[in-house]
Amino acid sequence: MEDSLHTLPTPQAITDPADPRLDDIRHLNSSDARPDLPGGKGLVIAEGKLVVSRLVRSDFPVRCIVGFPEKIQALREELANEPVRDTPAVYEVDRETLAEVVGFDMHRGLVAAANRVVERTVAGVLSNIPSGPATIAVLEGVGDHENIGACFRNAAGLGVSAVLLGAGTADPLYRRAVRVSMGHVLRVPYAHFQGKSTNWQQGLRALQERGFTVIALTPNTDVDLAQAIASVRRQQPEGARIAIMVGAEGPGLTEHAMRAADLRAAIPMAPDTDSLNVATAAAIGFYAARF
Amino acid sequence: MEDSLHTLPTPQAITDPADPRLDDIRHLNSSDARPDLPGGKGLVIAEGKLVVSRLVRSDFPVRCIVGFPEKIQALREELANEPVRDTPAVYEVDRETLAEVVGFDMHRGLVAAANRVVERTVAGVLSNIPSGPATIAVLEGVGDHENIGACFRNAAGLGVSAVLLGAGTADPLYRRAVRVSMGHVLRVPYAHFQGKSTNWQQGLRALQERGFTVIALTPNTDVDLAQAIASVRRQQPEGARIAIMVGAEGPGLTEHAMRAADLRAAIPMAPDTDSLNVATAAAIGFYAARF
Repeated sequence: MEDSLHTLPTPQAITDPADPRLDDIRHLNSSDARPDLPGGKGLVIAEGKLVVSRLVRSDFPVRCIVGFPEKIQALREELANEPVRDTPAVYEVDRETLAEVVGFDMHRGLVAAANRVVERTVAGVLSNIPSGPATIAVLEGVGDHENIGACFRNAAGLGVSAVLLGAGTADPLYRRAVRVSMGHVLRVPYAHFQGKSTNWQQGLRALQERGFTVIALTPNTDVDLAQAIASVRRQQPEGARIAIMVGAEGPGLTEHAMRAADLRAAIPMAPDTDSLNVATAAAIGFYAARF
Repeated sequence: MEDSLHTLPTPQAITDPADPRLDDIRHLNSSDARPDLPGGKGLVIAEGKLVVSRLVRSDFPVRCIVGFPEKIQALREELANEPVRDTPAVYEVDRETLAEVVGFDMHRGLVAAANRVVERTVAGVLSNIPSGPATIAVLEGVGDHENIGACFRNAAGLGVSAVLLGAGTADPLYRRAVRVSMGHVLRVPYAHFQGKSTNWQQGLRALQERGFTVIALTPNTDVDLAQAIASVRRQQPEGARIAIMVGAEGPGLTEHAMRAADLRAAIPMAPDTDSLNVATAAAIGFYAARF
């Protein structure tokens, strides 16, 4: 039945917080740490109507949707004319029940859980990007879940085609990353470079073979971002393909990663200030690359 | 002695968490809510060496600096050749004492408290901006302390001369805003527009009289940001003076504020995505206005 499409199932009411049908969303604050699953990775959790509807429209197989009756109703109305791929269980609960199950008062009143899917490969992600102008993001080692979520939100908003992740990067499907991304981690294609520590030379060569110029964002260069992008545009007047590469907040990109990039470029900063937050720097890179 | 300068005083050791000399930093999680002070506004708190050193170099009169001996020593070394204006009390404490006083384990091991100063006026802030090219920020109603801190961090990094705040904007001197701003709320000049609800027509006229073109960032326009800035540059070829105006996350700018602006401009967004975080949108605005 993989190819068939359905409307969202009729909700069932649950009043007992101990009901095992609610186990997927039990103790949400630790729900994504699942040492019982391979790699310790757990379910994908979506909170609030916007993110839940993005989860339903994503490739992730939705297991259940739980919420206040009026929130379930609003979601059903939004999806009324839009067949969904899965047939998740849909449960109506009241505010007290939901709070007891998830472990805190969930004002948004709507939560869903999905299974993970096999992650894409870098080659697979790249082969899906049409030829012509495109921007992609390369995150070397962004370890903070809010930052990685913000990177995906900014990538989606600013038209980035894909996000490629180094070995030290935080899990984009962690609950907080899903939330901060506004659900865009569920939509923007991404993949990890292979290996326990990324071989940047080899990883970035794959991008370059597909016509991308890799621009490493770093404060330690005299080339400014606008100059770097202009030089790529001169070489690809038919439409620049640019990969914006950023490193961990604090240390920034490693020398190792920067050596594998084509260009280094700085966002010009005022004297005696700090580097920008990594997601903010990436957003400026995406904006500058696009226009 | 207002004009005299000093080196940082010799630290005194304190071992008793109940010592009243530590009252300024007691229960930090609620330290900035001070209903006993006029307007309920409390002390300015700086955490960590970077922000504490920025506080010491700011206009805010430092009352005390408290930290682990090695952190105090590092700060003293940094400031050794740099006379400071105030003579704050300097206290050395161990990790347990500091944790008990502030109410949580403060890994950074250094904290300082300062008095507020009389806030600048919009006219005062504007009159201090030299003629010629300049960017300023106007925040209509950014209510979230992290967002306002991030706006100041981005403003400082991207060379913004001043930040002007509407009535509904959160207090930039709230502890979390100070921290997220990396201390830049203590350095970037700012002022609130007068009145319980801002009269934007009148407030923005003052900017326009000083040569600033006010660009309201909003998704609801066909003019893109780059076009808007290019049009200002054509009118001011000798150096554009641009005010980037942003509204609260969620609702964005009110129609009231937008009507008082000179131009409306959008950061072009990919279809079916959300608006950017307000501090990220502002950062892109600052970047685009500068270059």
